Amino acid sequence: MIDLEVLHRLQKILVERKTAAPDSSYVASLYAKGIDSICKKIAEEAAETIMAAKDGDRLHLVHEVTDLWFHSLMLLAQFDVGVDDVVAEFRRREGISGIDEKKRRGAEK
Amino acid sequence: MIDLEVLHRLQKILVERKTAAPDSSYVASLYAKGIDSICKKIAEEAAETIMAAKDGDRLHLVHEVTDLWFHSLMLLAQFDVGVDDVVAEFRRREGISGIDEKKRRGAEK
Amino acid sequence: MIDLEVLHRLQKILVERKTAAPDSSYVASLYAKGIDSICKKIAEEAAETIMAAKDGDRLHLVHEVTDLWFHSLMLLAQFDVGVDDVVAEFRRREGISGIDEKKRRGAEK
Amino acid sequence: MIDLEVLHRLQKILVERKTAAPDSSYVASLYAKGIDSICKKIAEEAAETIMAAKDGDRLHLVHEVTDLWFHSLMLLAQFDVGVDDVVAEFRRREGISGIDEKKRRGAEK
Repeated sequence: MIDLEVLHRLQKILVERKTAAPDSSYVASLYAKGIDSICKKIAEEAAETIMAAKDGDRLHLVHEVTDLWFHSLMLLAQFDVGVDDVVAEFRRREGISGIDEKKRRGAEK
Repeated sequence: MIDLEVLHRLQKILVERKTAAPDSSYVASLYAKGIDSICKKIAEEAAETIMAAKDGDRLHLVHEVTDLWFHSLMLLAQFDVGVDDVVAEFRRREGISGIDEKKRRGAEK
Repeated sequence: MIDLEVLHRLQKILVERKTAAPDSSYVASLYAKGIDSICKKIAEEAAETIMAAKDGDRLHLVHEVTDLWFHSLMLLAQFDVGVDDVVAEFRRREGISGIDEKKRRGAEK
Repeated sequence: MIDLEVLHRLQKILVERKTAAPDSSYVASLYAKGIDSICKKIAEEAAETIMAAKDGDRLHLVHEVTDLWFHSLMLLAQFDVGVDDVVAEFRRREGISGIDEKKRRGAEK
């Protein structure tokens, strides 16, 4: 069964690398550059996700969504939250119908 | 144990709504508008994720990352792929060290 | 001769609408929603610019870049700066060669 | 008088560099990498514009909007259009009231 274990393992590594030597890994060097640098990567990976979709390239799309989620997890770890909080939020929303959810969005945004 | 079941249930719903009446739900209406509309939402949610991080608002950040992943899953479903493909890609990368991964990225992009 | 006058006229209107009744125009309503809403529009128009480029649709590209610049001007006006400041910055950079500029970017970012 | 001359001069340089040796300048190297690379820069500069606004840093905001417009001009030049086309589109819209424009957007998007 495919489960969340890989994301939990990744998160543990991300947390460790927040305080590791900047030149020891990609993640450590990006954390050392600060939050704005992680945010820039999220914007860049979102753009690449969009371009992969426009190209109709399914494999590339999966890679870019993985990159996008990876950098989302880095940003979450920076704020001491993680994949369990996102999954819990998905669960909370399960009880809310699509149309109700849309109204909530409309009211919130 | 928190696992991927909620994302599998969501994906099943997304796939069903790809062909549902546009006015029946938020998801059905967004699918009816086409891929560009889903892509625009991804750009918008990425921007909101960035702004929540800049605000240092952890709860808002979790909500926006959930929105970002939700619309990523919609885009994946449009191309008949899904969360298992992303998780499989995370697993594939587990064997690759951070620095090697960075080199691969450099070569690829 | 095509000059900047149209952008100066636009900027004058934008400044007036910062304090106008929210339901009096698109610009007034967006200003009333606050900076985050203008920022979301910038992210959205950037995505639409990218998608127009991917479509190879030149006319659409011009429209989306116009939308992107329009909302950039709204954001600048929010902070009491404007098109002249951007043009002045373009002028300042004229004396800097491309490679030097790239080094500066590398050092800055 | 501050006018568009600097943007016309820039555009002339951009067009020349579309076919220049990739290692001769930042612009030539980015053109050599292709449209997707220019699009990624647009997404990145849009994110930096948003972050400068969130920081309330007016000078940084002007720099990032300049970067955003610079890469927009690169993308336009790639498709043989340019600043005059954008200015012409701004002029065309001058005759359209804000509310009408909003309706048009609603219908178009």
